[in-house]
Amino acid sequence: MSRLFPRAIVAATALVAASASRAADPVLAPSEIVAAAPAADWTAIAPTDLLVMDLAPDGAGHPRRVVIQLMPAPFAQGWIANIRKLAAAHWWDGTSVNRAQDNYVVQWGDPDGEDKAKARVLPAGLVKPEEAAYSVVFPRIPMSLPDGRSVDRPANPLAVKWIVPSELRADPYSALVGTTASGWPVASDGASLWPIHCYGMVGVGRDMPPDTGSGAELYAVIGTPPRHLDRNIALIGRVIEGMEHLSTLPRGTGDLGFYKTAAERTPIRSIRLGTEVPGLPAWQYLSTESASFARYADARANRRDAFFIYPAGGVDICNLPVPIRRTPNVPKP
Amino acid sequence: MSRLFPRAIVAATALVAASASRAADPVLAPSEIVAAAPAADWTAIAPTDLLVMDLAPDGAGHPRRVVIQLMPAPFAQGWIANIRKLAAAHWWDGTSVNRAQDNYVVQWGDPDGEDKAKARVLPAGLVKPEEAAYSVVFPRIPMSLPDGRSVDRPANPLAVKWIVPSELRADPYSALVGTTASGWPVASDGASLWPIHCYGMVGVGRDMPPDTGSGAELYAVIGTPPRHLDRNIALIGRVIEGMEHLSTLPRGTGDLGFYKTAAERTPIRSIRLGTEVPGLPAWQYLSTESASFARYADARANRRDAFFIYPAGGVDICNLPVPIRRTPNVPKP
Repeated sequence: MSRLFPRAIVAATALVAASASRAADPVLAPSEIVAAAPAADWTAIAPTDLLVMDLAPDGAGHPRRVVIQLMPAPFAQGWIANIRKLAAAHWWDGTSVNRAQDNYVVQWGDPDGEDKAKARVLPAGLVKPEEAAYSVVFPRIPMSLPDGRSVDRPANPLAVKWIVPSELRADPYSALVGTTASGWPVASDGASLWPIHCYGMVGVGRDMPPDTGSGAELYAVIGTPPRHLDRNIALIGRVIEGMEHLSTLPRGTGDLGFYKTAAERTPIRSIRLGTEVPGLPAWQYLSTESASFARYADARANRRDAFFIYPAGGVDICNLPVPIRRTPNVPKP
Repeated sequence: MSRLFPRAIVAATALVAASASRAADPVLAPSEIVAAAPAADWTAIAPTDLLVMDLAPDGAGHPRRVVIQLMPAPFAQGWIANIRKLAAAHWWDGTSVNRAQDNYVVQWGDPDGEDKAKARVLPAGLVKPEEAAYSVVFPRIPMSLPDGRSVDRPANPLAVKWIVPSELRADPYSALVGTTASGWPVASDGASLWPIHCYGMVGVGRDMPPDTGSGAELYAVIGTPPRHLDRNIALIGRVIEGMEHLSTLPRGTGDLGFYKTAAERTPIRSIRLGTEVPGLPAWQYLSTESASFARYADARANRRDAFFIYPAGGVDICNLPVPIRRTPNVPKP
């Protein structure tokens, strides 16, 4: 792999490996590093990239709002265009959460979607993305060799920071893992890259290949990262607030965690684009390009705060969630 | 690593790598392989290794029983001896689940455990295990070299099957991962091995080092495997039934997911050793030494059933849960 991304690997190794020079630093927990990050290290999430799902209130009457950040280009843009159309059409209003399988996924959409006689009619103009859209092929760029020949090498258009801590301490599912400059975890085989199934990621339910789903049926990961789904199903975003409203739903007792009766399903009041929701707060993510994120990643891989005895010396990409917060209220001067 | 465990690595590579000779086999999903496993491939779990926690019934009056399998020797035996004493003394009856942090852990025990004036008195005779007990050092056995010299090499006393699919496709947290012959996932540095923090694993809450906890305060993993806790905290078992009663508990809104008020805590009616619970069913695990487990592991790493397009070619050790089931009722002849 070092043939492909020598600079990126050096940067990532430095990022994760223990650094002797920081012995004099205070030993902070990852959460403390995030709390101390300067405002400049946080990047705003555009309200146009938010999807807001309001479930029916819980038994005690408390509202249950789930906020999803949609992925940026070049990922999954076909399905995301469909999702924007579905939200704009208020298509999901009155649908439900139909499945909750412990240590796997919660899934929502039209409970009669499989029944052609009863299924809701989809809005006009949805696209049908192909399987190739599950990943992004790197462009190849020519590189001149010292002897005058020219070879193609893959470019790294998303400025991914790869995490390759050491030989035999990498990822079980792919040759490379890292975070894009736009703030998303990805895996790669050196020629293409793809978003990955971590806790809270949201994907597109589908039937058997070559069907890839429209985006009308969505799921969120609520357990061990099901990385075997990577490149087998489209990921379109991640839950950034209200995840507990999905992860605590009663598990379904039917096959695959589907609810056996309509009464067990949780009604969806509405799903809206963020721009359609009055008074919606704003969110930020910790820039994966920032010094604070590098310190955070190092601390996630090498816990040296007081509770810890053995720093692991490595971290699973799904155990390195990109920090997200509500944009703090800055008092006016 | 191959110096240490040449045979084990060859076996594990064969176990996970795609096998050309199976092209004529039906392509089964992992769950289908488990369902088809012959009775001889299943190993009984002793009722003496079970811990049964009955939470207060849920809002609709449904019972909530959580069944935990305690780890066998040589793992965590000090804490497990304490836990047997605590259960025999009915010490947990009337305590509660005090913490539920999304994507992390649910924790239970004496809610006043931190308050010396109010804390429940622990039974006499509990031991205080040391940090060294977080892992198991391999015995070293002498090996004769051809030139007549003798060297020590680490033995593999638990007959662990290591999973090392290929270079750079391993584990982010350790040099080796695998499953013991006794049916537990472990990691290793080649000189010692330790149990690991997968979904549903149960561990011992503690304060700052060198305190290692008594076993009176327990937690279960409900999200992304927090593998950074490996070797930093004692694991004593895993939930084998009723996990959903823990994973769906409302998340606490205090620091670290602790509940802010006593009313939010879920009462624990009782925690008993399996041998004290009348009418308890029996459970079995799929022997990690069996041909069925090898096929299951291969299928988890290389999904070839109809839904899948790209077999991953690898699997995270926490995404390879050892199958566990209730012992089927065998009709009498």
